[in-house]
Amino acid sequence: MSLDAPTDHTGLRVMGAEECLERLASVPVGRIAFTGNGKVAILPVHHVVKGVDVCFRTSGGSKIEAAADHASVGFEVDSYDPSTRSGWSVTVSGIATVVDDDGLVVELEASDPTPWTMGDRSREVWIRIRTDELSGRELTRT
Amino acid sequence: MSLDAPTDHTGLRVMGAEECLERLASVPVGRIAFTGNGKVAILPVHHVVKGVDVCFRTSGGSKIEAAADHASVGFEVDSYDPSTRSGWSVTVSGIATVVDDDGLVVELEASDPTPWTMGDRSREVWIRIRTDELSGRELTRT
Repeated sequence: MSLDAPTDHTGLRVMGAEECLERLASVPVGRIAFTGNGKVAILPVHHVVKGVDVCFRTSGGSKIEAAADHASVGFEVDSYDPSTRSGWSVTVSGIATVVDDDGLVVELEASDPTPWTMGDRSREVWIRIRTDELSGRELTRT
Repeated sequence: MSLDAPTDHTGLRVMGAEECLERLASVPVGRIAFTGNGKVAILPVHHVVKGVDVCFRTSGGSKIEAAADHASVGFEVDSYDPSTRSGWSVTVSGIATVVDDDGLVVELEASDPTPWTMGDRSREVWIRIRTDELSGRELTRT
């Protein structure tokens, strides 16, 4: 971290886009936030990064699938160390859609052959979040 | 885990309310999801549990404070182990409000004397999520 790295009003270091994408891909699990039935829901998912977009599997008929019809969603990854009260997070804002391109599904399956959950594989769908905004913050102590 | 523990349609073990609250308090950082300007935002926060509610500090004038005017929000904590592809999560759905009870602020400050971020303490506010729904899932491999 250089001394003149940009910080926000709470003293957090602001990451550039490239670092955001690296961090996004550096952890296997993130959280998707979406609205449904007038409520805001948030669920952890095992994700892969495709270009600047975030993709993950979900069960056919899930709450997420229902919400992913070109809806605005949020996505977040983070890592923290309670012993030093330090950590970082990257957040994505974008539009979620069900992947209906068979070629892309094959590509995604190949890039991530082992799902984390044990639902009915035949009903599984991939969701892609097309990233509109990407933001990253780091909290360090010197 | 007993053999007849309830599971959902993806094979995840469903936690009872008491276990959800224990897990919620067992980690120092969770993520709040809320809507603002037609988008769904998600941010990590350092939280404390008060009864069945979740409380955390935020900077005065923050996006979260603006969104916390009796709005429906989601909150999530989790923990996972990539080496075994296992983990758990607890999610909260509720209404967020700014804490304006001075007695409660004193109590919250006492229960959590060391903030994680370094913003202007004098402008800080506490947000309380009044829990409507509490849900927990665990993914284990046997």
